Amino acid sequence: MSRWEPDARGRLAQAAMELYRERGYEQTTVAQIAERAGVTERTFFRHFADKREVLFDGSQGLQRRMVAAVEAAPASASPLDALTAALAAAAELFLELPPEFPRQRQEVIAAHPALQERELSKLARLSAALGDALRRRGVAEPAASLTAEAGVAVFRVGFERWISGAADRDLAVVLRESLAELRALTARG
Amino acid sequence: MSRWEPDARGRLAQAAMELYRERGYEQTTVAQIAERAGVTERTFFRHFADKREVLFDGSQGLQRRMVAAVEAAPASASPLDALTAALAAAAELFLELPPEFPRQRQEVIAAHPALQERELSKLARLSAALGDALRRRGVAEPAASLTAEAGVAVFRVGFERWISGAADRDLAVVLRESLAELRALTARG
Repeated sequence: MSRWEPDARGRLAQAAMELYRERGYEQTTVAQIAERAGVTERTFFRHFADKREVLFDGSQGLQRRMVAAVEAAPASASPLDALTAALAAAAELFLELPPEFPRQRQEVIAAHPALQERELSKLARLSAALGDALRRRGVAEPAASLTAEAGVAVFRVGFERWISGAADRDLAVVLRESLAELRALTARG
Repeated sequence: MSRWEPDARGRLAQAAMELYRERGYEQTTVAQIAERAGVTERTFFRHFADKREVLFDGSQGLQRRMVAAVEAAPASASPLDALTAALAAAAELFLELPPEFPRQRQEVIAAHPALQERELSKLARLSAALGDALRRRGVAEPAASLTAEAGVAVFRVGFERWISGAADRDLAVVLRESLAELRALTARG
């Protein structure tokens, strides 16, 4: 995908992010978001349940892609190999977003404890889904849950570093480095 | 603090847990908890901000003990050694609780998404505090955050196994096994 060309859903997401940053998340209404995006409120609600969900629209897609990558890994792949594939799939998804979106989203979430709790709960669901996918591959407990939790930990830490660091680094590279660092740490004892 | 106060706090915690299980968390009032514990509502509010906080009363103590264990680890200890000490300190704390308390608490939390979000947010705070403690030891990033996140992951997975498994196993043993399993998984590649 070369350029991000927003449809109504994309325009709504962009408008919401602009308004959250200009006026604050609390102060922004769905009516304002729809107006800025040039659509009706009814259109907004065809795409999103509420103004909070605009920020978490990508979570399900992220989970779907990471789970699909675990499922697509060869039968011979170790749990860690499957996790490596899932992290690569996560990084790919971010290439399809407007480059400034993840950082702006993070800023809005960081300013609102209720949004942070929502984010944590999405990540917990992601971990559970990855654990399920690993168990379907025959990975036993606690290996499946530990791999899934470690994967989300690497994703969180790597993503945070990517967001706060120089913008020109690939998320894929940062995630690989974070996983390698976790391996080095646990190997060292 | 006078001598009877820890007893009142303990009785309030026990009464709350009984009522949450008998009537449901939503249906239980502070007045009922105080009555069951044989204290006034005013006494309840001297110990807890609200009925939710009865369930999260231990979180701060857990964090304090784990952070103290990281701080007390010898200067030569690796991040993983410090984490191992923190997990041992966590297990010790649970020896001081009534044995049925952790499982009952988990059941109440599992039944209420809002309580689950609260639990996740406490665990995220624990991870941040462990990361801070490791950085104060001179551990660099991303090693400090990854170790802290891995520690919380091991705690969560081990705790879950301990709660749902045979009651006669030591939490300390289960946490050590979970950490060993994570190390084996990441070593395997």
